[in-house]
Amino acid sequence: MTGNIDLLARAREGQIAAVARLLSIVENEEPEAAEIVRATHPDTGHATVVGITGPPGAGKSSLVSTLTAAFRARYPRVAVVAVDPSSPFTGGAILGDRIRMRERFLDEGVFIRSMANRGNSGGLARTTKRVVNLLDALGFDIILVETVGVGQEEIEVVRVVETVCLLTIPGMGDDIQAIKSGIMEIADVLVVNKADRPGADRAVKDFAQMMTLGTPRLDWKIPIVKTSATEGTGIDDLVAAIESHGKWARASGDARRRSLDAMRKEVETLLRERILRELAERVTDDHLDRAAARVADREVDPYAAVEELLA
Amino acid sequence: MTGNIDLLARAREGQIAAVARLLSIVENEEPEAAEIVRATHPDTGHATVVGITGPPGAGKSSLVSTLTAAFRARYPRVAVVAVDPSSPFTGGAILGDRIRMRERFLDEGVFIRSMANRGNSGGLARTTKRVVNLLDALGFDIILVETVGVGQEEIEVVRVVETVCLLTIPGMGDDIQAIKSGIMEIADVLVVNKADRPGADRAVKDFAQMMTLGTPRLDWKIPIVKTSATEGTGIDDLVAAIESHGKWARASGDARRRSLDAMRKEVETLLRERILRELAERVTDDHLDRAAARVADREVDPYAAVEELLA
Repeated sequence: MTGNIDLLARAREGQIAAVARLLSIVENEEPEAAEIVRATHPDTGHATVVGITGPPGAGKSSLVSTLTAAFRARYPRVAVVAVDPSSPFTGGAILGDRIRMRERFLDEGVFIRSMANRGNSGGLARTTKRVVNLLDALGFDIILVETVGVGQEEIEVVRVVETVCLLTIPGMGDDIQAIKSGIMEIADVLVVNKADRPGADRAVKDFAQMMTLGTPRLDWKIPIVKTSATEGTGIDDLVAAIESHGKWARASGDARRRSLDAMRKEVETLLRERILRELAERVTDDHLDRAAARVADREVDPYAAVEELLA
Repeated sequence: MTGNIDLLARAREGQIAAVARLLSIVENEEPEAAEIVRATHPDTGHATVVGITGPPGAGKSSLVSTLTAAFRARYPRVAVVAVDPSSPFTGGAILGDRIRMRERFLDEGVFIRSMANRGNSGGLARTTKRVVNLLDALGFDIILVETVGVGQEEIEVVRVVETVCLLTIPGMGDDIQAIKSGIMEIADVLVVNKADRPGADRAVKDFAQMMTLGTPRLDWKIPIVKTSATEGTGIDDLVAAIESHGKWARASGDARRRSLDAMRKEVETLLRERILRELAERVTDDHLDRAAARVADREVDPYAAVEELLA
């Protein structure tokens, strides 16, 4: 534990290696993960956490890179968490993007982390939340969470943020229909990226039309922002839209609601894990093997075997 | 309960409607499911349970139909359980097959049941096992379990049987490579179906070669059988291969090992369900909401909240 306290102190000072080591402990659920979560929990709740999501090809990586620079000009410490819930194949691509991005940001004020799905089904959103909380507690002002794809797991991952930006690009046409369900429900800011390409206005119209189909959310009017990462246009508008949503979310109680949902999920998961761990200590493999044999021999039925194991 | 006892008595007499009703109760996990499992458990363990699996297009449905007729000529009561773990789309196709098959077997000695995946992820193998056990206890001599596809879930489903038959057809060539991993490990009898087509001997050779790559299993030499459901050839050989494997499995202890594995899984699942149900009674939604609020307010960390909930 003293080692971790030391690690925490160094991470709070901004030492990148210490931050990376702490994140690995939490991400891999190493034995010290609980201690780190407990020690840092009081310091969470200060960062602005922004999600960037959208279908492959929407230019998320470039936009995140440009957005990182824009936020870094405004705040001392910016973190990027790139989450890839898809197959290990795209893992390589996203990693390449990250390496190029690291080369761009050599200053200590920008921290970049890639997370791949390691098959812990349903657990990626939880791990992302923990990684985000840790970065928050370590003093990062802005945390950008980038996810690839628009499937159910991506939606779960992006749910952990305060403000969700959903990207499309001109000419996606019918493809945008595929992302309509689910992800539209949680988008707070809509972005037409690569807006220097022809058809940007059409894409804005498509988005506007899709919005009329969804349920209007309280008094937040979802803005549609046109950006071009290559030409550097629209970035200030996007930053303004994100900040404006953050203000609204805190004032309206929406941020509080999301935070409560996330905390409740975390408490429930920890509770289940704890109970099942206690069960595993009480009912050993040996007990189970013997019970299975008695059931296989038709001496008892499976329900009676469970009663016996718990007696 | 008296209603269920009555239902059981009628099902044991062979009344198809009573059998179907009991299966629905177990399949849908209706409240009376536990009572039925308990009441029938002592009578299980008599049926010969055979799995038929293989990639789409391998002619499983026709072969199962032919095999059903062959077993029906030897035993008084045969049941077919067709399991479709894939999307609801193929559900229609398999259902059509079943209707045609029901028209063929109008005698009361053949019972056919279709089971679709209702999204109870990971639970399909368990439900299949329960349905098979129930049919076993109701006095069916032979139970054929047919699965579509060769994914991980199909492998789990087919694991519940005593003898696994894996089908291919001539000309599948490289496609057979795709099914190699996993499913080859659990195949007890290999079948080259549609063997009237050119390339049957080549398919036998492919199978034989694949077998040399796998781990040899104790002293069971996996037979390769050529069948043609349309010409009716090879069916007797297949029945003989299945019966021979059944004898070997019972004598070698392999059947016992599979039965112990299945029973252990069932006991473990019931145990977890029971513990989590008790937890839900002890820790209510209200408790969880209040704990989440305290965590969100940083009054306590999530681990401390769990301690409080359990105190």
